[in-house]
Amino acid sequence: MSSANTNNTETTLVALLHGPDQPGLVAKTSGWIYENGGNILHADQHRDMQAEIFFQRIEWTATAGKGLSSDGTLFKRFAENLGMNVRVANAAHRTRVAIFVSKFDHCFHDLILRWKSGDYHCDIVAIVSNHRDLEAAAQNYELPFHHIPVTAETKPAAEAAQLALCEKLGVELVIMARYMQVLSADFLGKATFPVINIHHSFLPAFAGGKPYHQAHTRGVKLIGATAHYATPVLDDGPIIQQDVARVTHRHSVEDLIRKGRDLEKIVLAQAVRWHLDHRVLIYGNKTVVFD
Amino acid sequence: MSSANTNNTETTLVALLHGPDQPGLVAKTSGWIYENGGNILHADQHRDMQAEIFFQRIEWTATAGKGLSSDGTLFKRFAENLGMNVRVANAAHRTRVAIFVSKFDHCFHDLILRWKSGDYHCDIVAIVSNHRDLEAAAQNYELPFHHIPVTAETKPAAEAAQLALCEKLGVELVIMARYMQVLSADFLGKATFPVINIHHSFLPAFAGGKPYHQAHTRGVKLIGATAHYATPVLDDGPIIQQDVARVTHRHSVEDLIRKGRDLEKIVLAQAVRWHLDHRVLIYGNKTVVFD
Amino acid sequence: MSSANTNNTETTLVALLHGPDQPGLVAKTSGWIYENGGNILHADQHRDMQAEIFFQRIEWTATAGKGLSSDGTLFKRFAENLGMNVRVANAAHRTRVAIFVSKFDHCFHDLILRWKSGDYHCDIVAIVSNHRDLEAAAQNYELPFHHIPVTAETKPAAEAAQLALCEKLGVELVIMARYMQVLSADFLGKATFPVINIHHSFLPAFAGGKPYHQAHTRGVKLIGATAHYATPVLDDGPIIQQDVARVTHRHSVEDLIRKGRDLEKIVLAQAVRWHLDHRVLIYGNKTVVFD
Amino acid sequence: MSSANTNNTETTLVALLHGPDQPGLVAKTSGWIYENGGNILHADQHRDMQAEIFFQRIEWTATAGKGLSSDGTLFKRFAENLGMNVRVANAAHRTRVAIFVSKFDHCFHDLILRWKSGDYHCDIVAIVSNHRDLEAAAQNYELPFHHIPVTAETKPAAEAAQLALCEKLGVELVIMARYMQVLSADFLGKATFPVINIHHSFLPAFAGGKPYHQAHTRGVKLIGATAHYATPVLDDGPIIQQDVARVTHRHSVEDLIRKGRDLEKIVLAQAVRWHLDHRVLIYGNKTVVFD
Repeated sequence: MSSANTNNTETTLVALLHGPDQPGLVAKTSGWIYENGGNILHADQHRDMQAEIFFQRIEWTATAGKGLSSDGTLFKRFAENLGMNVRVANAAHRTRVAIFVSKFDHCFHDLILRWKSGDYHCDIVAIVSNHRDLEAAAQNYELPFHHIPVTAETKPAAEAAQLALCEKLGVELVIMARYMQVLSADFLGKATFPVINIHHSFLPAFAGGKPYHQAHTRGVKLIGATAHYATPVLDDGPIIQQDVARVTHRHSVEDLIRKGRDLEKIVLAQAVRWHLDHRVLIYGNKTVVFD
Repeated sequence: MSSANTNNTETTLVALLHGPDQPGLVAKTSGWIYENGGNILHADQHRDMQAEIFFQRIEWTATAGKGLSSDGTLFKRFAENLGMNVRVANAAHRTRVAIFVSKFDHCFHDLILRWKSGDYHCDIVAIVSNHRDLEAAAQNYELPFHHIPVTAETKPAAEAAQLALCEKLGVELVIMARYMQVLSADFLGKATFPVINIHHSFLPAFAGGKPYHQAHTRGVKLIGATAHYATPVLDDGPIIQQDVARVTHRHSVEDLIRKGRDLEKIVLAQAVRWHLDHRVLIYGNKTVVFD
Repeated sequence: MSSANTNNTETTLVALLHGPDQPGLVAKTSGWIYENGGNILHADQHRDMQAEIFFQRIEWTATAGKGLSSDGTLFKRFAENLGMNVRVANAAHRTRVAIFVSKFDHCFHDLILRWKSGDYHCDIVAIVSNHRDLEAAAQNYELPFHHIPVTAETKPAAEAAQLALCEKLGVELVIMARYMQVLSADFLGKATFPVINIHHSFLPAFAGGKPYHQAHTRGVKLIGATAHYATPVLDDGPIIQQDVARVTHRHSVEDLIRKGRDLEKIVLAQAVRWHLDHRVLIYGNKTVVFD
Repeated sequence: MSSANTNNTETTLVALLHGPDQPGLVAKTSGWIYENGGNILHADQHRDMQAEIFFQRIEWTATAGKGLSSDGTLFKRFAENLGMNVRVANAAHRTRVAIFVSKFDHCFHDLILRWKSGDYHCDIVAIVSNHRDLEAAAQNYELPFHHIPVTAETKPAAEAAQLALCEKLGVELVIMARYMQVLSADFLGKATFPVINIHHSFLPAFAGGKPYHQAHTRGVKLIGATAHYATPVLDDGPIIQQDVARVTHRHSVEDLIRKGRDLEKIVLAQAVRWHLDHRVLIYGNKTVVFD
């Protein structure tokens, strides 16, 4: 390891890799980087003992004179030859993000204010909504707003429009910030980008609609929120982050909804941050989060 | 309110009441106590706005010259005339408790050590187990141990023996301290005492067997434990207390089990404490906990 | 208790009272309300056993035909005759709030967005700042912005201007939303309104300047935030709410600052909410929070 | 990395190292292990960006044919040549632990029950106390109990006796499980083993005596506990673990003490576990915990 510097001729790369465990993997990947003149900033490994899978996140600066893309490409080839599944990202690249919203605005404002304060290394390239309620707010933030209404009949066409828009804008991540429509298996199958959703319960408890009402009826003493990647099975995708808050019999459904807003904001914000920092590795229906 | 004193001629009563809301209930119950020479130590109310139900826990000292039982009985009659469902307990009474265990000993030791340190106002009158593993430990604590084996065939007879034992000992509360048998609807129907169970998940997630394995498979980021009253529907009774702990991809199932032990101990210990202090009011399938 | 209704002829009152404990206080206050035709919505008592002080928050609807102010005034007189220190508020009244800010905007946006979403029963009548950085943001929210610069030399004059402004606007609460100036004992002595401050540490640890740097240097494993009423002794006023977040050696000072922002927002937001709902009773240098 | 196996000819080593950062450290240490036939099980790095210090915990199996001690010794020499400060432990070695107690027994029972359940890889070789209160309990656990009374006058002699006992028994860790004496700078200077203490507050708040009383007086809304290495400056040593619990105005000092017992047990238990697993690296007055 060595100091990161901001010399223009240096670039920082992040690799996420996983594959069958074998002796010497740490030595081999770190050795390759060292031999190629790179300096490791962070290296974090995990080994699933039962499944005998090796996971690694490795972040390093590629030195002057070396082309960034070539280094990333070469490392990818090297790690693939070790049997690894590899993704390499240039840390300087700003992920292109579209935020899908409906009428609730708490996650919307929260994400954008964090982004404006410099917390997120990304560009927000579109606010997409099936309602016009947040149009003025988006414009206030000087963010392009796209109104794509959705009804039972128009849903296929609306999703096609959403996909076309995302493709045109080069979207690399969609965040469902309390977007109140289920994205179809067809949409998710065609999407070339991951989709992060915030569900307002501690999954797998209270999947589906009106989770705060379900929680109130059951009389639970904690409510939760879950950020996960959307998959065709509703509320069943890989979980990135979860948190809970204590409630009592004194809390009405409305109180749960209000308290839940804070949970939703914080859990979604953390999940997005980890994703943008290339800290989340999807593995089966689970995640490995290198935090 | 007025200072509690330890004068022999005074006794402390605790009433838990609930019923249809109506004007003046707080004034009426507190007025009755004041007029009858009692001093309120604590009074806590809750009102379910939607169901229009009034809940109250009221603790007071009945003064010298008044027989305790008569005061409790009179108050009960008074509150019933207001349409309330009422339970009155003498705070000095030590609840008679039986602890059901199998082989896991962490909740067993935890409950008994808290009891020995004076945390619990109760008498532990029996340790009941389907295995002999904890017999020596119980004897070390000088607690009577009853070995009642349970197999699929002998379960009805075993439960009959458990019920007979509890009846003989005047048991007023059974605590399932990781007792690894499901008590049948028949047992629970015949029992004259409540049963508190500790389930090793954040219910309603992962009800049933092997919840830590279920949690590991699902890839949740928090594990939980739930203390609830046992009802004929497995893991569905009124929840008294819940808590969670953070886990990551680094935790194996064994780690979840180990971390979960702390959760189970703390959640069960808190639920038992609230129950023994007459702080838990069951209402439908939920609880009102006056903490 | 009885249903709250929105009939124009009804008003809801909230009383906070405390004073020397004596027998019959609950009966007397609830009896007075019942006899005067009021319906208690919530009543919560606390008794400091050592100091023999009685505390109560009582919320009730005063019925048709009775003037609100007269009922509040009469109750106040009644409770004062019982030796109590009493404040009575009309729940319909919207507290007039001034928010003091400097350059940090996270608590500023957070409070205003909660207010806009209907969480807070108040009017925000002024944003006051020693810098112009948040002027445009305040205007975006259509909130009046007052720039009152502060230097070592001009501080007395600046505070006089702040006080004059607050007086003119009828301010009833000042919130220091990461306002980076210490309000002088002179200001606090003259202020006719309480001042809530958010300190970015778990007080009493790390009082004074740069608490995140202090926390990093000390190597604590949790960072905190504390909302308290400002008093002439810096960071020593009655604490309303505190919370913490876990940190590790991996977190730099900058990470602590970023993570701390979420703590500061949530802790301050909760404290403000309790204050506006008349749930906070100051007693000596401590608070009783009827939540 | 490769599967750990239990072959007699294999041993698992754990190295904790830190020193000035330089390029290639990860590659060098992992490369050395690979070249020497070892398989890395876990490797975790940290880099203090400001101080430019590199920290690493690395756990590996040394293969058959290689002497364990020789491998550990060779790696130590290798890493020292890189400028690192290194400790290498054989994971199979059971740390020899002495527990110092006075009269409080909650941490004492908690540690021993965890140890008996297999949570801790250590041998408890002595219970040392200035009182006889826990003698019978220690004997029940079949643990040798040493009564070394301490008064102001006898303290130097008592500490000499404690040191002599620890030396005779080959003690490698002393745990102060609510031992109510301050160990002198002289004792700590002569001790060849680290000492872990549990302080019953969220340090640096409420250092010194009666922290729960201090917390109650200050009116904090959270109480805490801190496990740290003892150093000559009271309550100022490197913090290993901390946690907090929520309290309200309803909690008396006695309630804080009771609630605090759970905190103390859990925080101390976690700190001891990390220490025994060679996960804690002391660095200045702080710790790096590789969890």
